[in-house]
Order: sequence, then structure tokens, then C-alpha cells
Amino acid sequence: MSYCLGMLLDAGLVFMSDTRTNAGVDSIASYRKTFLFDEKDDRRIVILVAGNLAITQNVISRLEECLEHDDPTCNIYSATSMFDVARIVGSAVRDVFKEEGEALKAHGVEFSASFIVGGQIAGRRMRLFNVYSAGNFVEATNETPYFQIGETKYGKPIIKRVLTPRTSIPEAVKCGLVSFDSTMNANLSVGLPLDLTIIPRDQLGLTESHLIAEDDPYFSNIGKIWGEGLRALFATLPDPKWVR
Amino acid sequence: MSYCLGMLLDAGLVFMSDTRTNAGVDSIASYRKTFLFDEKDDRRIVILVAGNLAITQNVISRLEECLEHDDPTCNIYSATSMFDVARIVGSAVRDVFKEEGEALKAHGVEFSASFIVGGQIAGRRMRLFNVYSAGNFVEATNETPYFQIGETKYGKPIIKRVLTPRTSIPEAVKCGLVSFDSTMNANLSVGLPLDLTIIPRDQLGLTESHLIAEDDPYFSNIGKIWGEGLRALFATLPDPKWVR
Repeated sequence: MSYCLGMLLDAGLVFMSDTRTNAGVDSIASYRKTFLFDEKDDRRIVILVAGNLAITQNVISRLEECLEHDDPTCNIYSATSMFDVARIVGSAVRDVFKEEGEALKAHGVEFSASFIVGGQIAGRRMRLFNVYSAGNFVEATNETPYFQIGETKYGKPIIKRVLTPRTSIPEAVKCGLVSFDSTMNANLSVGLPLDLTIIPRDQLGLTESHLIAEDDPYFSNIGKIWGEGLRALFATLPDPKWVR
Repeated sequence: MSYCLGMLLDAGLVFMSDTRTNAGVDSIASYRKTFLFDEKDDRRIVILVAGNLAITQNVISRLEECLEHDDPTCNIYSATSMFDVARIVGSAVRDVFKEEGEALKAHGVEFSASFIVGGQIAGRRMRLFNVYSAGNFVEATNETPYFQIGETKYGKPIIKRVLTPRTSIPEAVKCGLVSFDSTMNANLSVGLPLDLTIIPRDQLGLTESHLIAEDDPYFSNIGKIWGEGLRALFATLPDPKWVR
């Protein structure tokens, strides 16, 4: 399993992903699930992946080959909109399905892959998409300004409670870290280090990437304050006097 | 979906379940998922159910028919241990599978049912089991003194953080209510009212049941304090100064 989170804020885009993959508990490895495309000054594009690693790596490799061959039908550096970028990712997913779907089915392996695709092309609006394994996709809006893929449930309550498009980037980072902390406490299949990528709106040159590793003092501190604070908050809840 | 929770404490057993069932979003209904067997003074037994309603109702009906016919092979009122009670429930699940499994498979319906079975027989120890759809089961221990079935993930973090066997019954009730609050905020398939059943250890006569409905002032208050407290706690987290 994986856990990836993309947030579309007035201030910009914030992406977070864990790095653990597992095929059974005896085959655990670390893979990056964040792919930042930043070689062209006019755009910043991030793709986060969850699901079957063979499928998601295949999709990313196809996108990279399109860049190498400068194939206009699938080059995300020459796409004219983020909508086109999402279509190119969806199309790559469908190509993998055409090539591998039947063989996977014969082995009883589900064709499971999902992607968070976001970014901005200079002069155009910042957008965030969730691309499904069928290659179709939906877009984040003001009402639900985030997408989660992978192991999403443990970390959803805090996002639902605090995240709005008006949330600042530092607050969104905090919210994401708390969400990952809750998830990693509950589920072994999501693990450190975390990738964090921030694309400020209309300031593509200020895009930043951070790797949050096991010994990260800020993340440890957030986790400690949050855990102790939750227990303290819990202790303030009034007792059910109606229980005998 | 459903959400059910059973907690095995030094002080006794606490059971909670929601009452929502759904077959698609246009077929939502309210069914009790807590079954308290309290007609014999020497024992209190609770069964919580999640999964396919036709299967779980069938299992409960079989158990009730065994009581009516006083069938010694499956009468939970004459079972001599909670272990036997769990075996009887597991056996009823297998009987339903024998009768219905093939027809369900032909219609592509998964045989999905799970049960939390707990209680105490006078003079014997209090026990809590999780019975799976294959009829096999595991028992709660000091290390993991609770079981969740159904829509378990949203509400797990708070339980993992605060629940131990030393938790008092009022605190366990609070913990359960916070867990249900987080779940119901995130997932429409879990809904009020909630059933709460408490069996104090070695005081079976003091068993109590509560129904927590939409207008329950205590539950609303807990949800309000918790939600506001979480946002206030979140605001106290230090900002990531390393974000530009």
C-alpha cells in the first residue's frame, strides 16, 4: 500500500507521499512515489502514484520516453494545458492496460493503479486531478480541494476537519504531516521517508521539494505534540454520567 | 457498511455499533447490529454483526432457533464457555455458507460477514472474539484489547492512542464515541443511532444498554468539543519554518 495526498490551495499546490511498497509483509521496499517534472521553466507538474508498482512504474517510464522522443501526442512538456497532461497520463494508463491487463488477469492480479496529477503551466490556472486505473479522471474543486490515493482512510478525518482552499501552505503541510502520522501509526504498509513538494501559485520558480526522513526533528515533534495533545484533549471530554 | 467495536477491559466489556445498512446509496435503512442475550442470569452474551445483512440475519436467526428448540449442539444458553459460544457462532456461519455460498457466488456476491462475540458466563472469565466469514475466530488479548469490524479505519487512530485494558468503562465509552464521530464524519455508510452495551466484569446483573440517537445531547457535545479541540490543538502545532 501507499498513501499519497495532493492539496489545491489558493496559495498553491502541496503534494505528499510515503515511500513504502510491499508485496506481502516479507517483501517491503522503499520507492519514491512522487515524480516532479521541472525541466521546463514554463511549467511544474507533479505526479503521485499508488497501486501496483509494476503498473505505476510502467506509466511513468512511458511518460519519460515520450519526453525523450519528444512525441507530441504524449509529451507533457509540450501539452498546452493541465487538462491535457491529465489526459496524457490517463492514456498511458490505458496503454499499459492494453499491454498487461490480460496477463495480470490470468494471474488473478487486479489492475490497480491511481495517480494524483497536478501543476501549473505559466499563464494558465493551477489544477489538480485524480486519474483512475481506467484512465479517466476527476478534478479537485473548491468544495473538495484535495485528493488522497492508496491507504486513505486513517488520515482522512483531520483533513476533512481543517483543510479549505484558504488554508496556507505551512498549515497544509502541518495538516498533511498529521494525516501521515495517523496513517503510519495505524498501518504498517505506509512508511517514512515522506516526499513533500510545494508549487506556489503563479511562482513556479519557487517550487520546493523536501524529504522527511526517520530522524526529521520537525516531523517527530509534530507527531509528539499531536499525540500528547490528543490524549490531553481526550481527558477533557466530560464523562458519560449516564453510564452506571 | 457498518461499524462495530468491542472492547475488553479490566472493568468489563463495552460494545458499540451503528445502525445503518446500505445496498447502494439509494437503499439505506436502519437495522440494529447489536444482539444482547440476557435471558439467563448466569451469563451475558453480546454479538455484533457486520457485512451482508442477509447472511448476518440468517446467522442470528439460526442461533435464536437453537434457543427455541433447546438444541444442545448450538444453544448458547447451555454452552459451558465463551469459547464454545464463539464456536457455535462460527458453526452457524459455516451452515449459512453451505446453504447460500454457491447461490451468492453465482450472482457474484461475496460471502462477507463478520462478528464480534463477547461476554461472560458466571464463574468463568470474560472473553471477546472476532468471528470471520469462514467461521474461524481470534480472541482479544491484553496487547490488543479490542476488535473493530466493518468500516474500521477512520475510527482506529483514537482507539490505538488511548485504549488499554486499564481504561475505565466511562473512558472507553468516550473513546468509542469519538471513534464513531470520526467515522460518521468521513463516511456516509455509518450512521446514528448507536447501540451501546456494557457488561461489567463479574457483575452480570448490572449489564446496561443505551441507544444514542440523533438528538443525544451528550454525543453531540462530545463531537463538538472534540472537533473544536482538534482544530485548536492543530493551531498550536509549530509552523514548518523550513517551508519557504
